[in-house]
Amino acid sequence: MAQRMRLKLRTVFVLYFLVSLLGLVYALMQLGQRCDCTEHDLPYERTISRLRGELHKLQEDIHKIESSPQAQKPKSSLPTIYVITPTYARLVQKAELTRLSQSLLHVPALHWILVEDAAQKTTLVSNLLRNSGLSYTHLHMPTAPQRKLHEGDPNWLKPRGVEQRNEGLRWLREDRRALPGGVSEQGVVYFADDDNTYSLQLFQEMRSTQKVSVWPVGLVGAMKYESPTVKAGKVVGFHTGWRPSRPFPIDMAGFAVSLRLLLTHPDTCFDGDAPQGFLESSLLQGLVTMDELEPRADNCTKVLVWHTRTEKPKLKREEALQAQGLGSDPAVEV
Amino acid sequence: MAQRMRLKLRTVFVLYFLVSLLGLVYALMQLGQRCDCTEHDLPYERTISRLRGELHKLQEDIHKIESSPQAQKPKSSLPTIYVITPTYARLVQKAELTRLSQSLLHVPALHWILVEDAAQKTTLVSNLLRNSGLSYTHLHMPTAPQRKLHEGDPNWLKPRGVEQRNEGLRWLREDRRALPGGVSEQGVVYFADDDNTYSLQLFQEMRSTQKVSVWPVGLVGAMKYESPTVKAGKVVGFHTGWRPSRPFPIDMAGFAVSLRLLLTHPDTCFDGDAPQGFLESSLLQGLVTMDELEPRADNCTKVLVWHTRTEKPKLKREEALQAQGLGSDPAVEV
Repeated sequence: MAQRMRLKLRTVFVLYFLVSLLGLVYALMQLGQRCDCTEHDLPYERTISRLRGELHKLQEDIHKIESSPQAQKPKSSLPTIYVITPTYARLVQKAELTRLSQSLLHVPALHWILVEDAAQKTTLVSNLLRNSGLSYTHLHMPTAPQRKLHEGDPNWLKPRGVEQRNEGLRWLREDRRALPGGVSEQGVVYFADDDNTYSLQLFQEMRSTQKVSVWPVGLVGAMKYESPTVKAGKVVGFHTGWRPSRPFPIDMAGFAVSLRLLLTHPDTCFDGDAPQGFLESSLLQGLVTMDELEPRADNCTKVLVWHTRTEKPKLKREEALQAQGLGSDPAVEV
Repeated sequence: MAQRMRLKLRTVFVLYFLVSLLGLVYALMQLGQRCDCTEHDLPYERTISRLRGELHKLQEDIHKIESSPQAQKPKSSLPTIYVITPTYARLVQKAELTRLSQSLLHVPALHWILVEDAAQKTTLVSNLLRNSGLSYTHLHMPTAPQRKLHEGDPNWLKPRGVEQRNEGLRWLREDRRALPGGVSEQGVVYFADDDNTYSLQLFQEMRSTQKVSVWPVGLVGAMKYESPTVKAGKVVGFHTGWRPSRPFPIDMAGFAVSLRLLLTHPDTCFDGDAPQGFLESSLLQGLVTMDELEPRADNCTKVLVWHTRTEKPKLKREEALQAQGLGSDPAVEV
């Protein structure tokens, strides 16, 4: 009887052992399996907008974490790129800002500082920024009358955007310095004019700037490209068609500065009285020496930004129609 | 002895039962839990690029499903926008295509048909497309010598991009017609030159095109904008500075055509011999009448696309340096 009882118990035990082993194996397999996040069953449109939303939410999260003073900065978080763009009212302004904003919208952890050359912020730029989907700061700073270019003046006569870039720097220094702790200093500052063309890779290259990073600029200075000359990973000179002896013969689009460096040099800014071609040098001289420059873009062998210029549109038919009272509706924003 | 043995076995059995029950409960909890797709532990950059990848994969999936003949079309799926862009080799080509591709990359369910004016596909364009993240078709079609603009010719002397746009149409008709069923016909065709500026809203406006949709174009024809004139939701005329009597005084950037309409009119294309300003009419005349046009952009009161033109860069310093053997490295792609 006890013998049979023991046998029966052992059989039950063995059977149960086998069944539960299968369960355990299944549970382990579940643990090893990857999540399937594609959720093919959802309607496609909703899925896309949700993914977009997640993407933007993530970008915002990153920015919030980086901007938050109390945040413990995780090592893997991205330094924010602060893009300072001077802009002024003209026929192609909205078009230029539209395509620039579309480029910037692809870049994570980016804050756009748009500085209008105007006595007050305009509705056009305010609306454009509000609808851009970007993290931004909207500033304005009119150019002093004696520095302004006049109708017919050649572009190079006076440097443009000086006061606006300096206003962007002022805002950055006040806003970022106000935050306690080192978190606020993790960042990169780039001066992006509103008519250039920027590849997305450019922003990846500048993200790791320690002091000042540099790279080639295409279609600038009446050259195919201008570029720092790099030997053994160090900048040893400059490929440029004009006055290579300038301290930093680098276009505004050809360098980025770490926020930390700008905060530890609180008085360094652009000098509006610098001679033509020396505006970039007037900032960089106060921050860095040539051998400290950090070459990017494959040791300055890749062109990732282009100094494109947009033609000023001619309105001769518009003017003819206006003379007959048949001009375009001024209420339509162009 | 048997009694003790039985007791001991029972204790082991009960203990084992309890432990494996816990395992089972854990496995069941695992099954019920939702996937956590945010994976906050991953470095942000990797997470973002993964989300981007998922997004693009989804877009491709949608495109595949829409193109797939056996697919049952869900009501919520987006008609694909086929963007036909003629392009030709020049100094600013890579810059222009770079920023256009960045704009298009924001638009879901879009397929880019890029047609080079060249005897064969170039490496520059091939690489750019491969790295663009877009769904695309790369074609080429050289302009016949007698139609080519020569150095110094004004832009308006001969229409540009005619053969390339027609090649895009040919591809669409062959590729889409080959698919049985109506699925392949759900789509919209837009002719987007590589130097214009496109707001993202424009693509939302054209997505629902039934036959031909129209809207204003900024900075075109020596006007602030050209636009269809709309009364009671119907196009009744055109605001233009030149020959408003043309059948369709609309710029190439100012209309989109449903794929279905192009497939049911298999011989309609652009006429390269059309007089200046009549190229758009040469296509539209064969497809639609004025009162069938579908006004978009708030009854044609919003400018969502700009006919921007990029200056041709001057290379006088490059040429001077080249004469001394000091020109830019030809191996560097600009």
